[in-house]
Amino acid sequence: MAEELIGNVLVAQSGGPTAVINASLAGVVTEALNYDCIEEIYGGLNGVLGILNEELIDLANESQQNIRGLRYTPASALGTCRYKVRKNEDYERILEVFEAHNIRYFFYIGGNDSQDTADKISKLAQEKGYQLRVIGIPKTIDNDLVVTDHCPGYGSVVKHLCTTIKEMSLDHEGMGQHDLVSIVEVMGRTAGWIAAGATLAKRRNTPEDPPHIILLPEVPFSAEHFLESVQVVLKKHKFCMVVAGEGLVDADGNYLTTSSTAKDAFGHSQLGGVGDYLRGLVEQHLGIKARSAKFGIAQRAAAHCSSQADNDEAFMCGQVAVKAAMEGQTDKMVTLVRSEADHYGCETGLAPLGEIANGVKALPSNWINEDRISMNYQFTKYAYPFIQGEVDVPYENGVPKYVCLSKTMVDKKLGQYAVS
Amino acid sequence: MAEELIGNVLVAQSGGPTAVINASLAGVVTEALNYDCIEEIYGGLNGVLGILNEELIDLANESQQNIRGLRYTPASALGTCRYKVRKNEDYERILEVFEAHNIRYFFYIGGNDSQDTADKISKLAQEKGYQLRVIGIPKTIDNDLVVTDHCPGYGSVVKHLCTTIKEMSLDHEGMGQHDLVSIVEVMGRTAGWIAAGATLAKRRNTPEDPPHIILLPEVPFSAEHFLESVQVVLKKHKFCMVVAGEGLVDADGNYLTTSSTAKDAFGHSQLGGVGDYLRGLVEQHLGIKARSAKFGIAQRAAAHCSSQADNDEAFMCGQVAVKAAMEGQTDKMVTLVRSEADHYGCETGLAPLGEIANGVKALPSNWINEDRISMNYQFTKYAYPFIQGEVDVPYENGVPKYVCLSKTMVDKKLGQYAVS
Repeated sequence: MAEELIGNVLVAQSGGPTAVINASLAGVVTEALNYDCIEEIYGGLNGVLGILNEELIDLANESQQNIRGLRYTPASALGTCRYKVRKNEDYERILEVFEAHNIRYFFYIGGNDSQDTADKISKLAQEKGYQLRVIGIPKTIDNDLVVTDHCPGYGSVVKHLCTTIKEMSLDHEGMGQHDLVSIVEVMGRTAGWIAAGATLAKRRNTPEDPPHIILLPEVPFSAEHFLESVQVVLKKHKFCMVVAGEGLVDADGNYLTTSSTAKDAFGHSQLGGVGDYLRGLVEQHLGIKARSAKFGIAQRAAAHCSSQADNDEAFMCGQVAVKAAMEGQTDKMVTLVRSEADHYGCETGLAPLGEIANGVKALPSNWINEDRISMNYQFTKYAYPFIQGEVDVPYENGVPKYVCLSKTMVDKKLGQYAVS
Repeated sequence: MAEELIGNVLVAQSGGPTAVINASLAGVVTEALNYDCIEEIYGGLNGVLGILNEELIDLANESQQNIRGLRYTPASALGTCRYKVRKNEDYERILEVFEAHNIRYFFYIGGNDSQDTADKISKLAQEKGYQLRVIGIPKTIDNDLVVTDHCPGYGSVVKHLCTTIKEMSLDHEGMGQHDLVSIVEVMGRTAGWIAAGATLAKRRNTPEDPPHIILLPEVPFSAEHFLESVQVVLKKHKFCMVVAGEGLVDADGNYLTTSSTAKDAFGHSQLGGVGDYLRGLVEQHLGIKARSAKFGIAQRAAAHCSSQADNDEAFMCGQVAVKAAMEGQTDKMVTLVRSEADHYGCETGLAPLGEIANGVKALPSNWINEDRISMNYQFTKYAYPFIQGEVDVPYENGVPKYVCLSKTMVDKKLGQYAVS
């Protein structure tokens, strides 16, 4: 056991929510209750923004029911943000808030931008000699964090996608006296992890089983190859199921989208429209009816169809973060470590925040088949365990009954701060 | 009991599939097994097309597991079609096939186009003195059949929509430091039954609860009123959740769509794009970020999130159709009849096919609030029971395990027929 550090916990969530980001929060709260040196358990509202604004809530004041309900409640119960901390003043202010509320343990649930923020907070605290333990908890449907084998949130988005692809395929199969090309546009800005995951909707990993064509941002789009592949599928089947990552690019690296390109606060391009682009291509060049669907935000919020394996791992990451901090660890992110055994097993590790912060894990190119539109057994073997098991979501009046935190505000101790 | 008519059953499915169309099929097969006068139970592949082509399968040969699995398997297990029977020769051919296979009971699961076809088959049989009992089984997510209180398939599409709206709303709520308008485009060509159903996602039927704005095809779209309403919502909330029926029209009756208008075999306009249209409107006129989602076919195929009440009623309609035929009824469609009691109860009735065939049930205008963008308690009271209960779908390897009929073909007895 490390030197005892008495003080308060602060946990916050950042970036795009997932179906299981609150399961990690539940893990933190549940575990934190076990330690005497933890006096208060606070939640920061809207990620780092709430910390800057000193908007903290008392999580120990939430009912047991609420904390338990976080296990299956999607979206960000604490609120999240896409605010990018850039200024030194911001970091100074964060430490000021931490000192004012005697925050000694900071847990930040988020992707690489968030781990970068956590890293800088941690470094500044060390510099100033303020005793603080900072542990990051991985979260992203994009599955693009380095070091960790995979990320909580990814399995659930893939499970929902595969379920939907399977249902749509059945629908198309039953409809088919005419050729139909069905396109599903999925999230995935730079990496095709989500689009690739759709391959798990196949019963067997053969070209016969839908989805027939998977278009990855990693593979420069060739209209010719795509249209040829569609025709090959339609010769054998009544329909062709296509899954396309929103970040699809042509050989010159330009996004395939019908809409103009805007950028968000992090400089990421705002995408959309690749489904409609492909639909137009098929209809114009092949004269075949095409449909496109785009689930948007529903993909990452679909807790009603989330993965128990993913949920369990998200919860575990929250618990492990607290345990690691209790053991004196700091400036680390919890990672998921795959066991080497024949059957899937998942343990945890720790990696320096700095290592996670600005890396992006690419989909291995040797997991893509030679045809460039399907995934091989190595991908299937990798991703298959993440979608196993179904989370039992309670329903009330016909719709899922999710919890909403009561959010007792912690009294402010500092003056206002101008977030800009 | 009516005069005993010994012979074979033929059941077929038509039009767009639903999450529970196979539950009705299961109802027919399960009930038909109870009667000695029924010798064979055949299924026609791809609706009336399969009958014209004499493509019949032996449903009695399917495993018990398969028939039970139909209860939760979405899409059309027999295959369906949108072929419109227009020529007299087609009707003659159908009767020829019926005679060749001694079909004495014909059950057609479909919407009003299908009930029209069933009606004409029944009339021709009577004209020719061929003993045949024809019973229609209602099916349509559009909920637009007349006489029947509601239609199997509707409750499930609404349950999936409400679940998704609820999840998306939670996601938006947690994200919100900036204003966001989120638009979901839903099915519904002429009537807003599905869009209206989204109101059941509200915890309480107040303007505060999402979805905040429901745009119905019945209410001519006014860009001004819409943009004003969005602004009112955004003054109180961080996001504005909009549900729009795909068949939204302006004051002149023109569809609001960014794409060109094609027509299907029945002369219905092929729609799409109202979500993107509204997104553009918001972004251009209000300068506020907007997102649109379109679930497409996934809406009607989402058995993983289907309604047990809907499923039970779909199954019951199949059973009742067989019972009615056994009692000597013909040329009727099974209807759902709401009990007059305070609590919801549902029985069945029968209505002449001709009455169903070409009617379209409109959403009562007095169920729409004065603001024209929300539904009142009368609608809620009406639709609320249809989304109750959750169908327990079995999963295998992380995705739903749906059944696929083995489809033992019945030997053909006639020559080929040229379907045109």
